[in-house]
Amino acid sequence: MSDEPGGDMAAVGTHAPAPPAGPEELVWDRASTERGPDLGLLQVRYDWMRHPSRREALKRLVLESVDWVNCVALTTSGLSVMVEQYRFGLGACTLETPGGMVDAGETPLAAAQRELLEETGYGGGTWRSLGAVEPNPAIHPHLCHHFLAEGVERLGEPTPGLGEAIHVHLATLEEIRTAMRDGRLRHVLALSALARVFDLFGTQTGNGDR
Amino acid sequence: MSDEPGGDMAAVGTHAPAPPAGPEELVWDRASTERGPDLGLLQVRYDWMRHPSRREALKRLVLESVDWVNCVALTTSGLSVMVEQYRFGLGACTLETPGGMVDAGETPLAAAQRELLEETGYGGGTWRSLGAVEPNPAIHPHLCHHFLAEGVERLGEPTPGLGEAIHVHLATLEEIRTAMRDGRLRHVLALSALARVFDLFGTQTGNGDR
Repeated sequence: MSDEPGGDMAAVGTHAPAPPAGPEELVWDRASTERGPDLGLLQVRYDWMRHPSRREALKRLVLESVDWVNCVALTTSGLSVMVEQYRFGLGACTLETPGGMVDAGETPLAAAQRELLEETGYGGGTWRSLGAVEPNPAIHPHLCHHFLAEGVERLGEPTPGLGEAIHVHLATLEEIRTAMRDGRLRHVLALSALARVFDLFGTQTGNGDR
Repeated sequence: MSDEPGGDMAAVGTHAPAPPAGPEELVWDRASTERGPDLGLLQVRYDWMRHPSRREALKRLVLESVDWVNCVALTTSGLSVMVEQYRFGLGACTLETPGGMVDAGETPLAAAQRELLEETGYGGGTWRSLGAVEPNPAIHPHLCHHFLAEGVERLGEPTPGLGEAIHVHLATLEEIRTAMRDGRLRHVLALSALARVFDLFGTQTGNGDR
């Protein structure tokens, strides 16, 4: 058993170790921890955390998960292989990058390749990491890993899970921008992956002083 | 009572109505719904959703919240007012844009201005919306609203809540990029706001064909 941040209680995800905790005057320490309900996709944990200066312990919510992945998959024609699906939280359909959850024993790269193939039937190509982001470090320990696949091809029919209904859409950058404008593409994890490949926002090249 | 997406069960957030549900062959419909545990920051809802073609009902998790906000706040010298704080999910300190949750009866803009002032002591300046994103439409109905404030000034001492311990840091774009490289700035909602102001990723200006 371990009480340090990133210790055994955070072991659900396959994510890399947390970075150094931070400066002493900001770091809370854990007085105790307890399991909350298992929500399926997420497991609830409650930590009683001591304020760095005032020292009283406050109850804090943590929602654990395995790591997530998504990918920007480009065909040899430079089109992005995207998925359209109904999202239960939002209550509407979104246009997104393919992605999902990392299975036990799987690397993030293998998970991204599997999800692309299952959701769209596309595969192959040349893959590289686009880095990882924290979906929400206030409540989640896990990461979302982004990948770029270039030169993917249609290898077969999609094989979505029984809990999925998905349309595959090959999008130009202009269609991606249109979907951002009309509200169909607002998923921050999809935008985060796409923004590492495309200039989505028309920002100027920063030179340190804007 | 209402069964349409964005109906009364999704009324916790102050977010705008959901976009049109989507094409008929992708839209699941809700057979029934039940309340799950109240997690404090999030309220659990379970929806039994019918698959658009197979029609069996599957239990789906929804985590409701009020809307979230964050802001890129620039001083008259062009420095970004950032916050460093311990994040309970991650178990480490992060460098982020100021932000938080929208209080009842508050607009997202007022919430962003309040959070900036509370967390950093900075205020004033000229504000505009940078749009909104879905933190995770798979499980969340709510949005995170991004704002840009230009020309903010230090108006007084920060007044963090009893559950907060925060350092204020005025960052150049180069420091932001360094924090991205060393892992202190990976929070996707902070990166999403910053990417609408700065060229964080060095992508080329897209012209429709990369």
